[in-house]
Amino acid sequence: MRMYDIIEKKKRGGILCREEIAWMVQGFVRGNIPDYQMSAMLMAIYFQGMEDGEITDLTLEMAHSGDMVDLSPIQGVKVDKHSTGGVGDKTTLIAGPLAAACGVKVAKMSGRGLGHTGGTVDKLESIPGFRTEIPREEFFRIVNEHGIAVIGQSGNLVPADKKLYALRDVTATVDSIPLIASSIMSKKLAAGSDGIVLDVKTGSGAFMKDLASSRRLAEKMVAIGRQAGKRCCALITNMDVPLGRAVGNALEMREAIETLMGRGPEDLVQVSTELAALMVWIGSEPGGCSGKAQRTEGWADVRGSEAGKGIGFSQAEEAGLARARERVAEALKTGAGLRVLADMAEAQGGDPRCVWEPERLHVGDKRLEVKAQSDGYLGHMDTEAVGIASVLLGAGRSRKEDALDYGAGIMLHKKYGDPVRAGETIGVLYASREELLEPAAKKFLSACAIEKERPEPEPLIYEMVRG
Amino acid sequence: MRMYDIIEKKKRGGILCREEIAWMVQGFVRGNIPDYQMSAMLMAIYFQGMEDGEITDLTLEMAHSGDMVDLSPIQGVKVDKHSTGGVGDKTTLIAGPLAAACGVKVAKMSGRGLGHTGGTVDKLESIPGFRTEIPREEFFRIVNEHGIAVIGQSGNLVPADKKLYALRDVTATVDSIPLIASSIMSKKLAAGSDGIVLDVKTGSGAFMKDLASSRRLAEKMVAIGRQAGKRCCALITNMDVPLGRAVGNALEMREAIETLMGRGPEDLVQVSTELAALMVWIGSEPGGCSGKAQRTEGWADVRGSEAGKGIGFSQAEEAGLARARERVAEALKTGAGLRVLADMAEAQGGDPRCVWEPERLHVGDKRLEVKAQSDGYLGHMDTEAVGIASVLLGAGRSRKEDALDYGAGIMLHKKYGDPVRAGETIGVLYASREELLEPAAKKFLSACAIEKERPEPEPLIYEMVRG
Repeated sequence: MRMYDIIEKKKRGGILCREEIAWMVQGFVRGNIPDYQMSAMLMAIYFQGMEDGEITDLTLEMAHSGDMVDLSPIQGVKVDKHSTGGVGDKTTLIAGPLAAACGVKVAKMSGRGLGHTGGTVDKLESIPGFRTEIPREEFFRIVNEHGIAVIGQSGNLVPADKKLYALRDVTATVDSIPLIASSIMSKKLAAGSDGIVLDVKTGSGAFMKDLASSRRLAEKMVAIGRQAGKRCCALITNMDVPLGRAVGNALEMREAIETLMGRGPEDLVQVSTELAALMVWIGSEPGGCSGKAQRTEGWADVRGSEAGKGIGFSQAEEAGLARARERVAEALKTGAGLRVLADMAEAQGGDPRCVWEPERLHVGDKRLEVKAQSDGYLGHMDTEAVGIASVLLGAGRSRKEDALDYGAGIMLHKKYGDPVRAGETIGVLYASREELLEPAAKKFLSACAIEKERPEPEPLIYEMVRG
Repeated sequence: MRMYDIIEKKKRGGILCREEIAWMVQGFVRGNIPDYQMSAMLMAIYFQGMEDGEITDLTLEMAHSGDMVDLSPIQGVKVDKHSTGGVGDKTTLIAGPLAAACGVKVAKMSGRGLGHTGGTVDKLESIPGFRTEIPREEFFRIVNEHGIAVIGQSGNLVPADKKLYALRDVTATVDSIPLIASSIMSKKLAAGSDGIVLDVKTGSGAFMKDLASSRRLAEKMVAIGRQAGKRCCALITNMDVPLGRAVGNALEMREAIETLMGRGPEDLVQVSTELAALMVWIGSEPGGCSGKAQRTEGWADVRGSEAGKGIGFSQAEEAGLARARERVAEALKTGAGLRVLADMAEAQGGDPRCVWEPERLHVGDKRLEVKAQSDGYLGHMDTEAVGIASVLLGAGRSRKEDALDYGAGIMLHKKYGDPVRAGETIGVLYASREELLEPAAKKFLSACAIEKERPEPEPLIYEMVRG
């Protein structure tokens, strides 16, 4: 086999067979295929795309390029959850404990934040003492005891993705749906769970800025999961505005805890409990997500009394999902989810008092209130710019090796559609150094549009894609 | 400037500005831009193409990446000729001396054969003693004295093309018209002539297999030449069958000499004299090729009494071209072209007796007559396969460092449209080793189709593109 011929085939729109993909991925990881051939291939894939079967072959080959985590020491059904990344997205910290409280096992390997979006591992580390580097046996033990543990990615997990992503990052081939889908799903498959719930973000704060491409990505990922024998479904959710009101590690940790206490902002509660319900559903209903991939348009219908009508849900599925929602609501109401979070924090070395009293989490003592400059309604928010403002305050990394200030961030006092008056506070910035406030305030203010008319409400959850 | 942004721009279909192209080419030649970024860019160019202005900027930047040959020590108008490569294409050996005999100066740097097509330098070296590596001053002196000299490419000519071509060759990005056009024209511009006549081959033996892409390539190259201030025109000629009857270095040299003696095969005479006439035309008519690029469809009309009618030729141009044709015909008839070739051969160290008595050129003494296996007409010939058969005999190189057997090759006894009977000789193979004959015969025979009906005649010269 020659890499030249495989590039030529993809360039002409051909479909790569399993042997070609295996030879290519293995050769690339071993260093037999040079970067300059792989980058030409990546660009050809950007233009010609890949069929579902090709993407699945690529994903499986990438997943098997390193260690495949064996979660069999953990009893029960293991369900993973993945978000494509957003601003203020702390749903894992809420949905994970809620699902675990309902009996699902969540053995989660999570990433750190990079660019304008945060990472779950960073948020958890804002709890003093919390360890995210834990030996595998201890990780399994904590999940068995408390239902959930969250650690950083460790070991030789998916080296093909590490190498491919580094190349994509410098050759303008990141934004290819087959490549994004295989990158995400190879890590999920290697991480070893039985089921996967995907949260595909769409809008100005997401990597996918429009619904159509978010939908394509969700469909590709669910198709891969299904073909790899996993229970898998995806929600497409709004990232045109930050989720909740907190942006920044300790601020988001606080908000997640308050949400588990029953006093979270409505949008965050809705998305988190729906994700948790899907985790419980696919974790408890063997037939839950094994049908063929279908898309439900108009999520509101699915949630209301018309649930499942004409959208491919059987009565049994409808009832199963409803039961899962009830159980999650119960776990929220009784504080069972909060207890799971506190137990997990303690088991991972963190101070559990911070969970019971979230005001113990340190936030920056240098603060600046950003005020509206005119009357009107808070309209479109450039959510990526809000994320960048939080990075300027110290809450994120521009480069992998940058240190984080856990206490830095932004609390939004106004959100999309809220009426505002000139001089009213839109948001409060938190930092540990005075001089970081002004530049971040400028960026934040540029991200907020004040409009004369109240803007049209946007859906929070667009669609579900199930496999 | 960042290479990432330039790749991203081209990927999205943007038009690169001169500064971006200059920064990119210079950075690549200096090694500041890695191969993996350039190969992603090449693939993006393959898919998104380039506008005429971009291609010209790229070509000029490439041309200036090394030495620009200064031909001012040569008196008169210097006209270069370039063929995109074909099988049995020995037109330079005929058109060059004929044009020189008419007073045009031909200071030609030529390539070696690679793959299934031959190179002029190899053909000339089949004359014992002929030197193609000559100091620049001697090269100029020979052109001044005899009107023509042909040498191999020497010095630091267009290093950007060398580096880019090597990368294209391993990343499946050779067949991009903007990249082919800039590669060819950068070398022509660096070689320093005042005018350039291009012979764009089309058909089964050419790199461009169809008329549409040959036409696009011709138009792009003429546009570049015009924008770079050169007199420039192109013929699109048939390479669906080998040109003439000889394929292989000494065999082609013999055929070229016999053509200059007035007994060449008709197709070779027509294409060679027309190319020579264009060289004389653009070399002697200052306004000849300075108008805007135009295409003349139906070359027969241009050659006949209706010459130039409705195809953008002014009466003066029509008359100028007719005069050039007459002068070339005269140079052929009087043997003036043959004399120039003999003088050049002697000046470059070759044995001039081989020009006066071409049977002195050594050809392989192991021979095999390939016979037709059925009655009918010789139909479509897979000309690339004929070229490959000649390589199998030793006439070409599979790799750059391979040695050539100048005496190896094929003489075609039948050509497209000729009636044949079973058992009649279609072609004779020449080699220096017996064991090379059989595999080549198999390849050659597979390239020849015997058809029941006489096939439709094909045009020899399709179109002219002028600038």
